[in-house]
Order: sequence, then structure tokens, then C-alpha cells
Amino acid sequence: MKSFNSRHATALVVAGFIPVAAMSQENPVVHDTEYYILEAQHGEGWASDNESVEEKLAAFRESNGGNAPNILNILVDDLGFGDMGIPELNMVRGYSTENINQFSDEAMRLVRMYTEPSCTPTRVAQMTGRLPVRTGMGDTAVDIAGFGLPGDEVTLAEVLKQAGYATSHIGKWHMGDIAESWAMNQGFDYAQHAVHQQGQLTIFNDDAIREQVSVAIQDYDPKYTLDEFFRPDASTMATVIEGEAGGPINEIRFNAGDRWNAAKYDEMNQAFQDKTIEELIRLAEGDAPFFLQYWPMIPLHNTRTGRDGPESPNGGLYVDKMQQLDRWLGDIFAEMDKLGIADNTVVVLMGDNGHFTKYSPQSGFTPMVFRGGKGDTTEGGIRVDAFIRWPNLIGADSMINNIMHVSDLYTTLARIGDAYDFIPRDRLVDGVDQTASILFADESKGRRDSLIVYSGSTPKAVIKDKLKLELPGPGENPIGANFYDIFRDTHEKYPVSTEVGAWGGQEFVRVLKRHLARKQKYPDVPPAFGVPYEGIENLRPETISALEAWKIKQAAVQR
Amino acid sequence: MKSFNSRHATALVVAGFIPVAAMSQENPVVHDTEYYILEAQHGEGWASDNESVEEKLAAFRESNGGNAPNILNILVDDLGFGDMGIPELNMVRGYSTENINQFSDEAMRLVRMYTEPSCTPTRVAQMTGRLPVRTGMGDTAVDIAGFGLPGDEVTLAEVLKQAGYATSHIGKWHMGDIAESWAMNQGFDYAQHAVHQQGQLTIFNDDAIREQVSVAIQDYDPKYTLDEFFRPDASTMATVIEGEAGGPINEIRFNAGDRWNAAKYDEMNQAFQDKTIEELIRLAEGDAPFFLQYWPMIPLHNTRTGRDGPESPNGGLYVDKMQQLDRWLGDIFAEMDKLGIADNTVVVLMGDNGHFTKYSPQSGFTPMVFRGGKGDTTEGGIRVDAFIRWPNLIGADSMINNIMHVSDLYTTLARIGDAYDFIPRDRLVDGVDQTASILFADESKGRRDSLIVYSGSTPKAVIKDKLKLELPGPGENPIGANFYDIFRDTHEKYPVSTEVGAWGGQEFVRVLKRHLARKQKYPDVPPAFGVPYEGIENLRPETISALEAWKIKQAAVQR
Repeated sequence: MKSFNSRHATALVVAGFIPVAAMSQENPVVHDTEYYILEAQHGEGWASDNESVEEKLAAFRESNGGNAPNILNILVDDLGFGDMGIPELNMVRGYSTENINQFSDEAMRLVRMYTEPSCTPTRVAQMTGRLPVRTGMGDTAVDIAGFGLPGDEVTLAEVLKQAGYATSHIGKWHMGDIAESWAMNQGFDYAQHAVHQQGQLTIFNDDAIREQVSVAIQDYDPKYTLDEFFRPDASTMATVIEGEAGGPINEIRFNAGDRWNAAKYDEMNQAFQDKTIEELIRLAEGDAPFFLQYWPMIPLHNTRTGRDGPESPNGGLYVDKMQQLDRWLGDIFAEMDKLGIADNTVVVLMGDNGHFTKYSPQSGFTPMVFRGGKGDTTEGGIRVDAFIRWPNLIGADSMINNIMHVSDLYTTLARIGDAYDFIPRDRLVDGVDQTASILFADESKGRRDSLIVYSGSTPKAVIKDKLKLELPGPGENPIGANFYDIFRDTHEKYPVSTEVGAWGGQEFVRVLKRHLARKQKYPDVPPAFGVPYEGIENLRPETISALEAWKIKQAAVQR
Repeated sequence: MKSFNSRHATALVVAGFIPVAAMSQENPVVHDTEYYILEAQHGEGWASDNESVEEKLAAFRESNGGNAPNILNILVDDLGFGDMGIPELNMVRGYSTENINQFSDEAMRLVRMYTEPSCTPTRVAQMTGRLPVRTGMGDTAVDIAGFGLPGDEVTLAEVLKQAGYATSHIGKWHMGDIAESWAMNQGFDYAQHAVHQQGQLTIFNDDAIREQVSVAIQDYDPKYTLDEFFRPDASTMATVIEGEAGGPINEIRFNAGDRWNAAKYDEMNQAFQDKTIEELIRLAEGDAPFFLQYWPMIPLHNTRTGRDGPESPNGGLYVDKMQQLDRWLGDIFAEMDKLGIADNTVVVLMGDNGHFTKYSPQSGFTPMVFRGGKGDTTEGGIRVDAFIRWPNLIGADSMINNIMHVSDLYTTLARIGDAYDFIPRDRLVDGVDQTASILFADESKGRRDSLIVYSGSTPKAVIKDKLKLELPGPGENPIGANFYDIFRDTHEKYPVSTEVGAWGGQEFVRVLKRHLARKQKYPDVPPAFGVPYEGIENLRPETISALEAWKIKQAAVQR
């Protein structure tokens, strides 16, 4: 399925022939334009840093029975910057995540970690190391859609697996409803994940309709609706699937005739948590290093049904679930200690994008430190809490402020996992290797100073250094475009256009133009298309009916 | 000058006759309505807490040679919540206040400390324990004005002085340009402070005009201006005065013919800092406990003249001065350690109101955690960083979240200073005693759950618990008034009016009406009026001319 092939270089390293760093330099990963402009200025330092990094990593492996570290990747939905790890801001909001804050004290905070503005593209960027627009995955689908992440993308799981990692994924996935997109077909030995996302699971269900949480489209007499397909209904869509790489895939915990509701959502989340602990124990017992992903679907939870009452002074729907998330993550960290794997496991904990303001303020969360939330390309949409913990190798309770993009985790974790050589060289990889800045806690060792911020397939902003240009819409006069100084103005309310406009306008537009020009050599491709749910062995009759509706809609385009 | 007289009760306590707590209960401080509603519900607990508090304080005094603790009160101009003591937010903005952050780790953060929305009223509230509107001091004057804080207000300095404290004030004051308002006439044994504020000292000066920082009203040919008084000019206004209680008052470091400029401002700030250290040493050597106020005028500083270059990645005009403030406060804390007075000194460090957004983003600061800044009654105008440090008695690196108003420091510091009995009983005191909540780090022991937020003499909002009602303007329909849940919505952008409007509207309006009704018994009075600068012995000819202009303007009203 993969177009990239490589011999596993680590064997050569062990035998002492060719250092990995040297191999990487001979056959470098292909990056976007701006990387090469920085490389021309800092290449020598980077090469030297690479050697120091490799020494550190090799020393760790030697102390760890030859294995690279385990990697636990926890990606939480819809959090803003400052929701985790800053007790003062907890208190301002009226809740407390003590276990997470403790974890934060043991970890490094990546202060300037940028995500994409919504779930799907952030997850695609982390899994592929590439801007989601390169595979047409910039948008987020909440219905039965028939597209997803192409199988020939080389995910981080596939990169690590080639280096010998055991891989598991549990929780959210949200990169398509076709089989080739799913985790068990994208490099994970084992996966259990929702096919869709919380739109289905917390809004289109019977409890949510009764609570009038959403448009509640079923909450009136259906005889006045001509199009009977025009009814979002969680129960007719595939829910959670489970399977192993190459094996059968089944929908689990949901039978024909069942109705999805708040209790099912709670049960599902509890099962994800339990399975994560189970996998942690199983994987810790194995000989191989492991790559375990836990992508919880809480704190997002839009109904009050089944709740005992407020769990925090805030009492908001999501904020209360933060208390549960905190207990759950605390259990995971405690289990790691119990298993004795805290020291040889790199833990990445972060949000996938800013707050979901559609449910503010009932959620208990609104954007705070930055402006805007999920879906926005202001900092509040794309700046999140991000932590990386690796005792003894990464400074506890530390911070760095260099610009990172979520795609950088792909390259950086590949480097840490001694799998850098398995990153494909036949395509453009947006993620850059930030290992040196992290291991040496030195933001001047960062390898990115800019970012093109997309919304869907449209570039909406260019960030470079501490300045941000809000790109004008098509046909709008670029002379009126606004610049913001992100350090001085976290809420992007006070344009500094007059100060930097004349020079900056030119240079920022050139950043964008170079990025676009390079697409001629490495063109964007569409996502993979297919028939939804194909490959699920136990499809329910309700789901088959919903699929028929999808097919009628597809066919209508051909008439 | 004072209408309140009391025998000093501490002598009786020492002799074992009547506990202070009992006396306080027999002759209680007069509060606003809402206090009594809470007292009716919690009075017994409060009485018992008072006894525990008195035991702790008495034990401290016994261990401290019979003295109550020293009090160092550092009030910084125009800071928002999160500017100090949260390293993550330092980094987000691109600066670092390491000494202040270290101090914060040793102190308790008063997370929900409310100030007034600008300098003068906040300082009046802290000094008098009363809402500034009660003495007509809700507004902030930036010119020669002829009014100020009445002499018969009983300041915290006067309260503590009666209990035996040595008192000094250095830095900003900004509570009037008439003699009875000034610190050396308001309970301070020694004072050195600016008569006006930074409008004069950083905007109306020659460097600011050359840099076009402000309206630069002198930056064009004066022959086209009919009114030659229409020229703000720092050099014609009184600058910094110095004097002792009852002694002569002189303008210092500024001579006839001098021009005010950035260098003078720098020199003044350095002198305040140096004098603070000098006073700290002098007072520490004395037998009496001391009450030292240092109210710095930086970080506010609007010109680049005389600066060596950016001191921080942010580089903003105020943010760079935060680095200087941090060094200076660090020097003060180090000096306290050297003098061996860290453990017997209560240090209060806080901002006086939110950011001065008129100079955003060049200042480097914009509102971040909360919405709005100086002058606004949104949380960003009236929530600030506030810390209290008292090693061994107040939990290090702790936080409490009960609502406090800056006026509560009056009563609380009086309690801590064993001077509660000297709080006048002939007037309404808005400040409530928050000592129990602080000493026991227990926000449920707070004695305030509401606040009337004024702008000038107009009530603009009512805060109760975690809800805030934005009061409609005169003539506006109250049914449309917005409620905000401050925990869930720090930026007051998502009204919850439909949820709480029908009940809350009634109850919140009643809070306001009770507050207004009580003014019939304790009516607001005007500020003190007088001739500006009278009592300064060495007035310059320029200042005398400016006074003549003020008199012509005053006389015009009588024509």
C-alpha cells in the first residue's frame, strides 16, 4: 500500500557502519520553501545539533535495552491555551485539573504550538506530518461523507512500526468514514475508534433533541418534511469500530434497534479509558517499544442527561467533564508509574484546536488568553496547551516558545523513536524536526519561524516570527490587510499595519507565494473517496438504510 | 482633623482585660447592606473565625517582640490579570519577571481581587476602605484641578499610625493636587510623591511631543491658537513633592526653568526606588512596626527617548519597563532578606486597574485573560494580579478565589496590624475583613459575595457570586440588560440573560437599590476643594503662572 520503501537503518547503526544522522543528511526529508531559507542560515548549527541529539538518543536506547522510548500520545478535543497546567487559570474559571497540572509540572510546555483550526485537519497533520490541504483533508465532516485520509499517506504509526514499534489507537479518529482511512488500516496493530465525531454522538441523539441542545430537527411532526433523509440521527450512522491490522472490522457495543443517547456516549468514553489502561498494561509487557494513541472524546459532551450534578464551581457541560478527564489521565499516569514505564515513555498531551464556541458559555469554556475558537484562524483557534514529558531527558516544568506546528510532532517523534529514516522522501513533509529545541530546552534551536494558516483549502493567515498577516479575502484590497504583533496583542485587536505594512506586506506575501509556487512540484491531491462503512462486517439495517440514502444523494449529482 | 477618637485597645489586650475581638463585636464597623445579609447567615462562624484569627495574630506578635508585622504595600499602575506570577503567560507575551514570579511562589494569590477601573478611585478605596464615590473621588484628573481626598477621611496610614506604626509613602499618589489630600497630610510620617500622574509626566513633555506620542498640542505654530492656556505642559505643573507630617513641603529635583522630559521621568523613578530601599533600611532599624507604601510609576512609560533598546522579545514600551520593575522589586525583596525582615513583614503586591489600552499595542500589553482595560467596568478593567506574602502565616504558592475588593485591604490590613479598633465607626466602611479567608486559605470564609462596580459616580455593573449584571444606561430598557457568567465567560461575550434574567434581574437590581437606599443614612459627600499646590514652599514661576490660568478659568464660571 505504501509507495515509500526503505531498509531499516537502525540495524546498520547498531553494527556501527553509518550513523543515522549522516544517512538523514544524505537523503534528507523534503520540506517546504521556508525551511530551506532558514537552513541556508543555520544549516551548520543544525547538523551539529543533530549529532548531539543522536548521541543523547543513542545513550538513552543503550540504557533502555536497545529500545527507543515508548510514545503515549494523548490528543484532547477542543481545548484552548491555558485550560490545562496553569492553576491560576483553572481558578479563574472555577475548576481544577490537579493530575494534569502535576503532569505539566513534570513536562515541558510547548508554548507556541500551532494546530489547525479544527479536528480533522489537526489530526491529519499530526498523523502525516503534512498540511491537510495537501491531501484535501482540510475540512471536517460530521455526516456520512464517503471520503477520508488516503491509504498511501504514511502515518506516524507506519513510520514507527517500520522501526519496530507496537502500535495501538483508541478513542476519536475522525479522518474519514471509508475503510482505508481508519487507524487499523493506517499503521495501528490494534484500533478501537469512533467512525465519526461528537456531532453525531452528542448532538444528533435522542437526549440532545429532548434537551433542545441542537437544531433538534426531529423534534417536530415529520409529516411536514418532504425529504426524509434530512434527519441527522446518530443511531443510523456507524458508531465505534474495532479491529486489528489486516483483520476484520466490527462495530462494537451497539446492536440493531439500539438508540444512541447520553448513556451510550458515557459508556463509550468509559470503554475508551478502560481499553487504554488495558493496552498500556499489555504493551508494557511486550518486548517492542510501543506507540499508543489515546484520543479522548470528552470533555466535549453536550447533554445534562445522566449527570449527577455539577462537579466544579464552574459547572459548565465541558468543564465538568474536564474533572473526569483529569481523573482518567491521573489513572493513566499512575498506571505508568505502577508499570515502571514513566521514565522510558515520552508522553505528548495536547489539545487539537481552540474552544468550540458554538456551545459557549454553557460548555463552561470560552476563549480566554487568545481570541477566537475552533474554526477561527485567530490564535484562539489554533493555539493550544501542548506538553511533552520524558523524565531525565526533557526538562521538568520547563517551557519553550519557538513556533511549532502540530505536523512537527511527526518528524520530531520519528526522530525520538529512531525512525527518522522511515519518513517518506518522495513527498513534501511540512513537519520539521524540533528535537534539538526540545531536548536542549533552547528555542533558538527551533527550525521553523513561519506558518501558513489554512481554513479548509484557503490560506487565511501567514505567521512569521511574532507577526501575523491576516490575508484579505479574494478580491479584497491587500493594502488594507491587517498585521498583528502576537506577543503584544494576544487577542489580535490592535493592528500594527502602519508600522510593518509596507515592508511586511511584501515579505509575507512572498512567504505565501513561495509556498504556493512549490505546489507545482508537489501538488495537492484530493482525499480518498469510497463507499462509507465498506469493510465493517456487522453493519446494522439502520446503517444500511442510511447508506442507501447516501447513494441516492451521490447518484443525484450524475443525473 | 479626625472625627473619630478611640483609646488604643492593644494596651488593654496586653493587660488581659478585654480581647480586641470582643471590643470589635461590641462596637462593630459600619458596613453596606449586603454585608449584613451575609452576616445574618454566617455571623456565628465569623465570630468564631475572628477568635481563631486573633489567636494567630496574637501568637505572631508574641513571637515578634510584641509588635504587629510590618506592612509593605506595592501598588503597580495599569496591570492586567496574569501579567505577574504566571511564567506561561510571561512567555506568551515575550517577557519574563523572574523576581516577581519567585515572589508569587512565596505568596498567596488573591485571584478575585477587584479594583476600581482607574488609578485615583482604586487608591482612594485602598486608603480609605470606602468606595471612592462616597467622597466624590471616582474620577481621575490629569490636569491642575483643585480638588482631592478630604482631610477628614481616615486613611489606612492613620489607622495604623494610631496603633503605633511608623509610616512612609513613596511614588505615585494621585489623589488630588491640594495639600490636605497629600500623603504627608494623610497619615504618613514621611512622603515623597508625584502630585499628578503619568499623563503629565510621560505625555505632556518635550520628548513625547517630539515622538508624537500624544496629541502633541505644542507641535505646531502657537500663533494659530487663541487660548494660550490650552497647552498641556508637564513643566508648568508641580512635579514631585516631599515632606514630613506637619513639616514643610517642597518640590524636589526640579528647578525654575527646567524642562520635564524622559530623562527626568527616569531620574524620578530611580529616585523613588532608591528612596524606598533607604526607607526600608531606616524603618527596619526602628522599634515600631512600619507601614511602607511604594507605588511605582513604571511600567507606564510612553517614550523611547533614552532607552538602550528592547529588553525583551516583546519590546513594548511598558513591557520592557516590566523588566526594570522586576529588577527593582527583586532588589527590594533581597534587601528585606538581608535586613532579616522578610518573616515579620506582610507584603502586598498588586496592580491598580487593567491595561491602559490607549497605548496598545505599542505598550506591549493588551488585555488578555479578561475583556477590556483601564476605564472599563468589564473584568479586564477591574481584575488585577494581587499577592499577599507573610511567610509562615500565609500559605506559600497558594490561591483563594473569594470576591475581594481593594477596599477590603483597608479592613484586613488593619486587622493584621492590630489596628482594627481604629477604623472609624462614624461612617460607612465598604471594606470587609477578609483576614480569615487569607490566613486559613479558605475562600468559604470570605465575607463578601457582591460588588457594585462604579465608573466615576455611575454604577455600571453589579457582581454577585459568579454572575455579573451589566447595568443599562439611564433611560435604557432594563429588560435588555446583559448577565454574564464570569467563570464560564471571562471575556463577557456570551450573555446568559435568558437563563438567569427573570430571577436575576430582580435580585441584582435589589442589591443595587439596597446600596442606594443606605446612602440616605450615609450620604455621599463631595471631595475637598481648594487652591492647587498651596503649601508647596518653593513653587516655580512657571507653576505660579499655570495657577493663574487655573484661577482665570475658575473665575469664568462665576461670571
